[in-house]
Amino acid sequence: MKNSSSADPCDKTGLWIKEIHKDKVALSFKIEKTLFSERSQFQQVDVVQTAGHGVMLLNDGIVQLSERDEFVYHEMIAHVPLFVHPSPKQVLVIGGGDGGTVREVLKHQSVDRVVMVEIDEIVVQACRRHLPSVSCALDDPRLELRIEDGVKFVNDTNERFDVVIVDSSDPIGPSEPLFDQPFYERVAAILADDGIMITQAESPFYDHDIQHLMLMNQRPFFKKLHLYLFGNITYPGGFWSFGYASKGICPLKDFDSARVEKADLATRYYNIGIHRAAFMLPTFVKENLAGVIDPVIKSLRDFI
Amino acid sequence: MKNSSSADPCDKTGLWIKEIHKDKVALSFKIEKTLFSERSQFQQVDVVQTAGHGVMLLNDGIVQLSERDEFVYHEMIAHVPLFVHPSPKQVLVIGGGDGGTVREVLKHQSVDRVVMVEIDEIVVQACRRHLPSVSCALDDPRLELRIEDGVKFVNDTNERFDVVIVDSSDPIGPSEPLFDQPFYERVAAILADDGIMITQAESPFYDHDIQHLMLMNQRPFFKKLHLYLFGNITYPGGFWSFGYASKGICPLKDFDSARVEKADLATRYYNIGIHRAAFMLPTFVKENLAGVIDPVIKSLRDFI
Repeated sequence: MKNSSSADPCDKTGLWIKEIHKDKVALSFKIEKTLFSERSQFQQVDVVQTAGHGVMLLNDGIVQLSERDEFVYHEMIAHVPLFVHPSPKQVLVIGGGDGGTVREVLKHQSVDRVVMVEIDEIVVQACRRHLPSVSCALDDPRLELRIEDGVKFVNDTNERFDVVIVDSSDPIGPSEPLFDQPFYERVAAILADDGIMITQAESPFYDHDIQHLMLMNQRPFFKKLHLYLFGNITYPGGFWSFGYASKGICPLKDFDSARVEKADLATRYYNIGIHRAAFMLPTFVKENLAGVIDPVIKSLRDFI
Repeated sequence: MKNSSSADPCDKTGLWIKEIHKDKVALSFKIEKTLFSERSQFQQVDVVQTAGHGVMLLNDGIVQLSERDEFVYHEMIAHVPLFVHPSPKQVLVIGGGDGGTVREVLKHQSVDRVVMVEIDEIVVQACRRHLPSVSCALDDPRLELRIEDGVKFVNDTNERFDVVIVDSSDPIGPSEPLFDQPFYERVAAILADDGIMITQAESPFYDHDIQHLMLMNQRPFFKKLHLYLFGNITYPGGFWSFGYASKGICPLKDFDSARVEKADLATRYYNIGIHRAAFMLPTFVKENLAGVIDPVIKSLRDFI
């Protein structure tokens, strides 16, 4: 789940939802009806039936996910770290109230326990009711769902995690501290030595300033920082990205593709080729993030 | 250059251009002023100054390119085949009236001659005047620019080409024959035995029916068919795709990355990692095109 960096309210003119990004580009979806609309303590939460993208969740008028393509985001945020970490058992998800991320995490048999910390209970309720294909794993016995501030949780917990997934919205409003140095320092402290942190990292075309700041704030606490990409149709900005941070584990050198074959998970986007390809960055992205991400990936030849 | 599969006219309401795709999703760009507007024999041609995407070309109200991200499309349509073919000398470009494709093709020193066949002279004139960074190579002495129907050209020519690039709009209107079997049969006939054909192939999310039909029509005449992907912000549909067809040359096995290093071209998207990564397809794309594209690419390991 993420927000666009624009907080423009939802414009439902003529049964279209229009999300304006930086007052320069807008993406609109035709809607058929509103299924849920409620103001929570944190934001306006809407669920609508669209004409071409299934059921869609919006927070403060910003598209968070659609049934049509949520599999891309959720498979890529979960399976990349869980197939790189040698044996992920304890997983922490910050945000992700729709349940899509934990649905994918819980497909991994090695996982004993997932703690999911979502600040807004209304989002969880809306998705349980209207997006059952996304929220379907929220009652899994291995999941502890906490309605709580993610920053407070990482500050207070004594647990250690193998993988921490920050399934956040933008660095504005309640998610702002999730992009700050003190948060990343705490995540590094609760991560096992072979742990991996994944962070929602916006559009390489539109948000490289946010990407740069986010990675600079992670840099002091992680030995390896990378960015990886995936196709996306619900956020303006073509492909989208996640940050990969670890204390040493490389997303390609330490990736054992045989584990993917053996697990044989039902996926619609993620596969072995996509895992490797996602870390190959366009030249302009590498230039934008030069000196911040690790430049080790010159060629796939080094990693296979 | 391409058209969306919707022919909805440009809606300039409130100084925004809105392109509606299949009556389900729309992408809008804020515009500052119109620079060119003329009805050609084939279509309405507009050039506008946008607020966030530089100068933008529209045919029949459909965004064809923006200064902001045209480098992605043009680098990927040109450098992939030109770095796979062992020694490309003769290149044919069908369409591509803006000049971006030939600008990239002509960066290759091995290329002796490029024939570019564009049906609409008004597009060329508009881009010469208002998109000089795109049309800048149209006066290169190695380029023969013909204002002519591309189908007629391939039917009549006796020349042979190493690379044919079909930089077309959608399979509606004047570009429709560029997606048909007879056209591909003729392209195969004028291609050298080690030749490569690249075709504009739409959005994997929204247009897999068109992709399927296009590839089925190519199948009888080419031994190898692949699809490759790139990020895109000006067409609705997240990432975008090109078709790769050859009589035997593999885009990965026969790709010699040392040639890319030696050529050292100034690119902003294309690089060695991106070349390989672009052919790694998401699972849903492979499933949509099963039996049509070659399934040889199981893992990058086979090609390095």
